[in-house]
Amino acid sequence: MRVVETDFQAWMGGVQARMESALGRLLPAAHLAPARLHEAMRYAVLEGGKRVRPLLAFGAGEVARAAPERLETVAAAVELIHAYSLVHDDLPCMDDDVLRRGKPTLHVEYDEATALLVGDALQSLAFQLLAEHRLADSPHAQLDMVRTLALAAGSRGMAGGQQIDLASTGSALGLPELEYMHIHKTGALIRAAVTLGAGCGQASEHERHKLDHYAKAMGLAFQVVDDILDCDASTATLGKTAGKDSKQRKPTYVSILGLSRARELAGELRAEAQAALEGLGGRARRLAELADFIVLRKF
Amino acid sequence: MRVVETDFQAWMGGVQARMESALGRLLPAAHLAPARLHEAMRYAVLEGGKRVRPLLAFGAGEVARAAPERLETVAAAVELIHAYSLVHDDLPCMDDDVLRRGKPTLHVEYDEATALLVGDALQSLAFQLLAEHRLADSPHAQLDMVRTLALAAGSRGMAGGQQIDLASTGSALGLPELEYMHIHKTGALIRAAVTLGAGCGQASEHERHKLDHYAKAMGLAFQVVDDILDCDASTATLGKTAGKDSKQRKPTYVSILGLSRARELAGELRAEAQAALEGLGGRARRLAELADFIVLRKF
Repeated sequence: MRVVETDFQAWMGGVQARMESALGRLLPAAHLAPARLHEAMRYAVLEGGKRVRPLLAFGAGEVARAAPERLETVAAAVELIHAYSLVHDDLPCMDDDVLRRGKPTLHVEYDEATALLVGDALQSLAFQLLAEHRLADSPHAQLDMVRTLALAAGSRGMAGGQQIDLASTGSALGLPELEYMHIHKTGALIRAAVTLGAGCGQASEHERHKLDHYAKAMGLAFQVVDDILDCDASTATLGKTAGKDSKQRKPTYVSILGLSRARELAGELRAEAQAALEGLGGRARRLAELADFIVLRKF
Repeated sequence: MRVVETDFQAWMGGVQARMESALGRLLPAAHLAPARLHEAMRYAVLEGGKRVRPLLAFGAGEVARAAPERLETVAAAVELIHAYSLVHDDLPCMDDDVLRRGKPTLHVEYDEATALLVGDALQSLAFQLLAEHRLADSPHAQLDMVRTLALAAGSRGMAGGQQIDLASTGSALGLPELEYMHIHKTGALIRAAVTLGAGCGQASEHERHKLDHYAKAMGLAFQVVDDILDCDASTATLGKTAGKDSKQRKPTYVSILGLSRARELAGELRAEAQAALEGLGGRARRLAELADFIVLRKF
């Protein structure tokens, strides 16, 4: 196994700090009316998470030689969609969870109605960001970004995956059905992060194809590792409720494959992702390192 | 008072039929996976409502000589945002309503989790529509449409208005605060309908300014009339629970101004809307007729 290098950690820390600052600036200020909503939107997004999707957007942006000013905006749009999905997913009518990123979930800290509106408004803001900044070399390419994010978030992407997840609770899914669910629930937005990051710069059709292959493998790898950690780790380490899936009798890679085969699968997907990067040269280095980071992470 | 003319009714019926067909085509088919979600999205949108926002978009489109093919897509995007807001607004954590457009509300017919996802997915679909069809003379102008709709739907538009509405229940709002709430909650999306309709064709800066003034007055007029009808009409006529606002101790134009002054105000706003159309000539005829229709409606 490759060792995650110190200079990768510096790069990652730099992107994370840049994103915290960008998100803080792009979200409405907490004192603007309606203040309670804006304060809660900031609570949902800031100081939270590993920013995996922004890291992937920046990694893809390096391949396409994209400007960081563009990357931080598309990464923010993707992260807002992700944050809204967590807020809605934690609601009592969905997963009914009380802990997220080490803090009370939004409807616990505020109330359910506010959590509903926070998710709704974060989704609108994501599309606003994609429309009001110059992010691609042509407005036509930028409209394509809007379409890509909308498809990834919608009924045939993330929201559709959530619906399949709802239907699967307590049922005996096979591996193909589980994979189908995750391709939608988490995979679609991860692919969008990579596509939008590449779209900020110049990438050939061939390069885009390779990046998309990488993103597909990483989307699944991410979920396999999530399932392993949910079964392995403690609530304190995860910052969210551990062991939740088995309690809710949700099918997971671990419940279907067993822990040892799930670990092998994560390694295979990491190898597939890195193979997809071959031929992209040194500019794909961060994406290769991210594949290591995502699969070898402990939280 | 002008009499609503038969040929206006034919125009209105034509737009409504065209929209039903367009929405049916633009929504994912009910058999596509995840079928339960797509079926529920169709339940939320089809066979319902007067399509006031699409009518306003088509009316503004006549002023701008816009092609109906463009108008039906932008009108569908606005209507999807409106439909999603109704689904979320009816949820138990918000207004907790069981009847909408004469049918059980979505979470009653399906379940709360599905209602949450239907709203989320309808919002994504609205932005997808604005990105994947050619709707304006330049992609740059079309990106402006995306921005306009996102702002109208978001925390400083409709979702923000909902938050103010939540905070106002049981409190003694004054007229300025009530107006501020409605400018956001319903006004923003009505203005967006007119702006997007005009954006499908050619309108001068001066014409756009007049149309926006019309839309602002109509947004408020629509709400004043809603409050009057909520107090006046029966549940059967409205197709939604009547007398709800007073039961929930929500401030309304009727509770603050009294019925008689609220009726006067609706008439004043209608006059203001029609005055804003002066100088636009015969092409503004449908918008003038719509002002009559919206203010004089009985349901």
